[in-house]
This record gives sequence, C-alpha cells and structure tokens, in this order.
Amino acid sequence: MQVPSLSISRRTRKTPFSRRVQEAGVKAYTVYNHMLLPTVFESVEEDYKHLKSKVQIWDVSCERQVELWGPDAGRLAQMLTPRDLSDMALNRCYYTPMVDETGGMLNDPVTTKLAEDKYWVSVADSDLLFWIKGLAHAFRLEVDVDEPDVSPFAIQGPQAEDLVARVFGERIRSIRFFHYDYVEFEGQRMVLARSGYSKQGGFELYVDGSKWGEPVWDAFMEAGADMDVRAGCPNLIERIEGQLLSYGNDMTRNNTPHECGLGKFCQTQQAIGCVGRDALLRVAVEGPVRQIRSVAIDGDPVPPCNELWPIIGGGRQVGTISSAAYSPDFRTNVAIGMVRMTHWDDGTKVQVDTPHGMRSATVWETPFCNQGGPE
Amino acid sequence: MQVPSLSISRRTRKTPFSRRVQEAGVKAYTVYNHMLLPTVFESVEEDYKHLKSKVQIWDVSCERQVELWGPDAGRLAQMLTPRDLSDMALNRCYYTPMVDETGGMLNDPVTTKLAEDKYWVSVADSDLLFWIKGLAHAFRLEVDVDEPDVSPFAIQGPQAEDLVARVFGERIRSIRFFHYDYVEFEGQRMVLARSGYSKQGGFELYVDGSKWGEPVWDAFMEAGADMDVRAGCPNLIERIEGQLLSYGNDMTRNNTPHECGLGKFCQTQQAIGCVGRDALLRVAVEGPVRQIRSVAIDGDPVPPCNELWPIIGGGRQVGTISSAAYSPDFRTNVAIGMVRMTHWDDGTKVQVDTPHGMRSATVWETPFCNQGGPE
Repeated sequence: MQVPSLSISRRTRKTPFSRRVQEAGVKAYTVYNHMLLPTVFESVEEDYKHLKSKVQIWDVSCERQVELWGPDAGRLAQMLTPRDLSDMALNRCYYTPMVDETGGMLNDPVTTKLAEDKYWVSVADSDLLFWIKGLAHAFRLEVDVDEPDVSPFAIQGPQAEDLVARVFGERIRSIRFFHYDYVEFEGQRMVLARSGYSKQGGFELYVDGSKWGEPVWDAFMEAGADMDVRAGCPNLIERIEGQLLSYGNDMTRNNTPHECGLGKFCQTQQAIGCVGRDALLRVAVEGPVRQIRSVAIDGDPVPPCNELWPIIGGGRQVGTISSAAYSPDFRTNVAIGMVRMTHWDDGTKVQVDTPHGMRSATVWETPFCNQGGPE
Repeated sequence: MQVPSLSISRRTRKTPFSRRVQEAGVKAYTVYNHMLLPTVFESVEEDYKHLKSKVQIWDVSCERQVELWGPDAGRLAQMLTPRDLSDMALNRCYYTPMVDETGGMLNDPVTTKLAEDKYWVSVADSDLLFWIKGLAHAFRLEVDVDEPDVSPFAIQGPQAEDLVARVFGERIRSIRFFHYDYVEFEGQRMVLARSGYSKQGGFELYVDGSKWGEPVWDAFMEAGADMDVRAGCPNLIERIEGQLLSYGNDMTRNNTPHECGLGKFCQTQQAIGCVGRDALLRVAVEGPVRQIRSVAIDGDPVPPCNELWPIIGGGRQVGTISSAAYSPDFRTNVAIGMVRMTHWDDGTKVQVDTPHGMRSATVWETPFCNQGGPE
C-alpha cells in the first residue's frame, strides 16, 4: 500500500510550532484533535534511536486543553473520572481515565489542578470538551468550560532534564514525576510538568499563548545545539515498548479503564460524583475478562497496524492486536493488544493473524521496557 | 511546502469502502471524525471536471451517524437545534445547525427522522456524540445515544439519478430533495435520501452494515460502467462554487448559525427546548454583524487555504477567508469568507492578504454556482 498524502486545511489546524516543524523536515503527520501531529522526521527507526539516546523537542499542541474554571470546577472534574481527586494538591497533574455513564473510556487525559477553581484537562484524540460542556450545561454547574490558547511542548529523552535546566535553571530538577511548577519565559509565566508520552524521561511545557511558540522552540534548539537536540514526536516503537496506550488505537468507548489496565488510577469507591461510578463499582467487583497486554510477534517486521488483528489461542479468537512495530532494540515485533483472561498470563503462547500471515507470538503482562533484554 | 504523508493507524479508522477506494487510486486523504476521507483521485481539477459532467460514487462513511432512540428521542433532537422539528415528517431529512448554550455552532449535520422515537444525525467533523450523550445523561432522558454501523455512500453528479435508477429502479426518481425512501439491496433495507455535499444533484445511501460496503460499491461501478462512473469525493472547488460550508473550515464554535448564513434554518421562536434558544433569540433580534460570503480573488491560482487569510477594506481588517481554490469554470479564485456588514454587500471591492501577497477581490452574496457565468 502506497503511503497517501494528507490534505491540509484550516480544519486540520496548524500549531504555534508548525513553521518550525516544517523547517525541521517533518515527513508525515497524523490528525489529532483536529490538529496536525508530526509522526516522522528522519524515519520512525532513526527518530527512535535518537529519542532513546539524546533529547528531542516535540510539538504536541494537539493535546488541547479543556479549561474548567469557576466555583463548580472541582465538582465537575470529579464527575469525569473514577480517580479520586478529593485531596489533589496544587502542584499535581494526574493521569485520569475519563468515562461515560457506562464506564466506557471517553479519553485518557492528564488533568492539572491550577487552583481550587481551575483545572486543565490535556486531552487525547476525542472532543471531550463536548461531553464536559454537555454535563456542565445540563447539571447547571457554575463553571466555564472552554479551550484556551495553550499548546503543550514536550522535551523528551535521557538528556531532557539537562536541556530544560539550561533554559529554566537548576531548580527544575526538583520537580517530581507528574508534578508541576511555574517557570518564566521572557516574562511570561508557564506551567512546566515532569510528564510526557515516552518512557525516556522529560517535561511538558504548557506554552501559554501562540505567540510564544517559535521563541520557545528556538530557545530550546539554541540551548541544546551541542547536545544534538532534534525535532521529534511521539514514537510508535518506543511507546509500544513502554505500553503507553493510545486512545482510539488501543482503547475506545467500548473499553473500561480496568480492561485498559488502568485500574490503579481508579478509586471508584471514593470518587463520589463520578458519572460512571455505578457501572465501574460493578466492574471493580467482577474484574475485567479481557485486558491490555504487551505482545511479542515473531518473524519479519509486520506492516503498520491500521485495523485490529485477531489473536488466536486454542483454535479460537482470544483477543486483538491494536498497535505493532518492529523494535530494533528487542529484535522482535512489539505490540499492544487486548487479551482474554484465558490467555493473558505472562509467557502465554498465541498466534496473531497479521496481513503478512499467521505469526506465533507471546503475551506479556510487563511492558517490554521493563523486561530488561538487550538494552 | 511539500505535501506531507498521512500516517494511518486504527485511530484514523478505515471504512467499509477503503479497499475499493485504494484500488481506485486514491492519492490523498484527510481525517474526518477520526476516519479516512478521500480528497483526491486523479487531481482536484480533473475530479472536478468529471463531477460536473458525469457521475461519481463517494466514500463518505466519515459522516458518522449518531442514533437517538427511545421515548425522549424527539425531545432530545429539538434540544440540539434551533430548526423547528415539531412537524417533521417521517420521510424527511433536515439540514440542522446544532448549537451550544451560547448559540455557537457545534456541528451542521443532516438529521433524518426514521420513526417518532428514532433519529439519525449525520455529523460533520466534531464528536457531537459526546455533547448529545452529556445532555441525555444529565437531563436523565429516556433515550439511547450511540454510533451505529451505518456508512453513507454518495452518488453525485448530473447523471447520478440515472445511475441510482439503474440500481434501485425508476421509483427513486420521485424522491424529493432532502426527502428519503427505503430501498432494498440484496434483501437489506437501507435509507436512500436525495442529498449530498455537491450542487450537481444526487443521493446518499445509508449503507446499513459494514459487510455491504464492497457489494454496494461494486454494484454501482458495474451498473455505471458505460456512464464513465468513477470514484470521487467532495471536491474543494465545486463546494466553494456552491458555497457549501465546511465545519471547522468556514465556521467553528465561535460562530452563530446567523453568521454562517444559516438563519433560514433557524425557527428559534418555535424551537422550544433548544439549548441555545435564549442566545439565538437575542441574535435573531439584533442580526449578525458579520456573515459568510463568496469571494472572488483576482490573479493567479492561490495556494490551499490552511489558515485564515485577512480581508482588508478601507485600510483595516473586515473579515477572513477560510477556503479558497482556483476555479477553471469561473476562471478566478473562488473563496468563502466571513465578512463584516460594512463590506458584505454584493460587488464590494476588498483586498485579501494571501500567502502569495495582497490580492484584489470582490464580495458576493450569491454563490458562484448561481451567478451564471461561463458555465
């Protein structure tokens, strides 16, 4: 299959960094929250090697913010998620599964608490804004729900902390994982969190105002010139190795957080007011019958996974693969799939029906990146 | 700017017709409602000429349906739109601006009434499902809201009626504009409406069940072989000539239906229960201060419009262009823009600040396709 072109229009929104991304030689995009998200610079493999050894800057503006602001902001935030937000501190961001009234996943954003009456929800690829606006309106909550002009910019890779310290000072080293602090860029206060969509470590800067996009990009490029800093993007291989899920790929509205292996982020009993609480209390008792797993698929590199591939065990379908890529470091195809409990134990042998034919495969509970191996 | 590639994954969903679209030589896509929408086969210009002279079949599966089903379906449908649905007949589909509590556009779908307790909302590019689910839940309505496995397939072009008559029989000729009837395809009942995103005439078949995708495609290709039927898609030039608006391009949540020239679809006074009724009653009294217009931009062909271009009049900004393309038939650049009332009268001369420099331009209230001209 030939790689098709992407037609770009106002609807597939540009970002504050788009010109720099273009200049850096972006080769491919996807569209994410109606916005351009780069997917390849040199090649997926070269970008991967660089990400795991150096430092990259990423245009992840497509992680749009939904701002909740007003006296009912905290109450509304808790309606959205089974994660207990009741004692969330003012320097925290939480990974928050968000569910509908049946416990089905609507999004898996990072929620940042900026004030008792102000939250930012940094959304994956669905218009969560519409769900939140619907609830806020119909429940007559005293809260403003909108999309501010805030664009996340990620600094990722083993040398990310050093680069960020060069730009914002040594004090950023004390920011803990999924905590944030404020930094100043040319007099503009911005949120800097230790977070990001890779397992290589790093930060996300919430660039507050589109006009700051290019100056921020240039400041990091300049500060990291001798570190071989490059333009990068979320990397398919690296995120599968780390079992970082992608909403729309590895999970949809058909899945509960428990199926997605996100039970540890659910304190459903305590999450009073969560819209999906009744449904999820039931799931918490019974447990899921299928769950996300890492899967190693044997043989030559598989093609991109653009539809579910059946997982076969004992002669019948026991799951589906939703993401796959060949990993140079693990010298196998790494994949993410949803597997029935009959076949989800560590080391279970299965088969995967790929577009390149049936392949033998092994199910792993532990993400590849935590399995040791050749790295 | 080099045309970038599109990275395809499960998240950018394939459609029941994707294999046929691929085989037909699709050259570019956009992503629309998290789904692939073809944008180019031969070239935008060649596709345009063919659409205006022959007949095409279009994969518009990305017009996903939101199904409202249950005793409160009608009440919920009216909550969504300022169009009066109270006497909507059972053979009708309505173009329905849908608005939030401030009267801001959330989508501009076609709503089809299938039964007193069942509606399909055929959505433009936003997750309207989330807004509707939020309202249905919080207002405790007795209604099921979901996305069924239904994929629109359009037959468009001056010979569309003849082709559809060959497949479904002569009786389809009596279906009126924005009305529908049922047809049978190999025993499966499906909705066939006289509608579609072109001004060339045609129908939309709501293919009910993914398994019917390829058989339907093949039946039309076979029936129309001697008519030079081809795979096509919504055409940028043709839709601008017809002033067919695109949500996300020509209008967003910042615009009211009145600004979008959709006032004729608002019977706000009668639309009791519409969530945006209070705000739109105010707008209906005061009228909008800016509105959608067709704009002819002089000079050589302009590049694709991927961000708003300022419209300048009397030395200051009086509007923005949101879509533009060179029209072979009108031998000028045709465009759609939002223009302030000071400059919106027919024939007003303005300037447009394009990426290729400042251009003289003329504002027209009437769409190009109704202006006569060289056609």
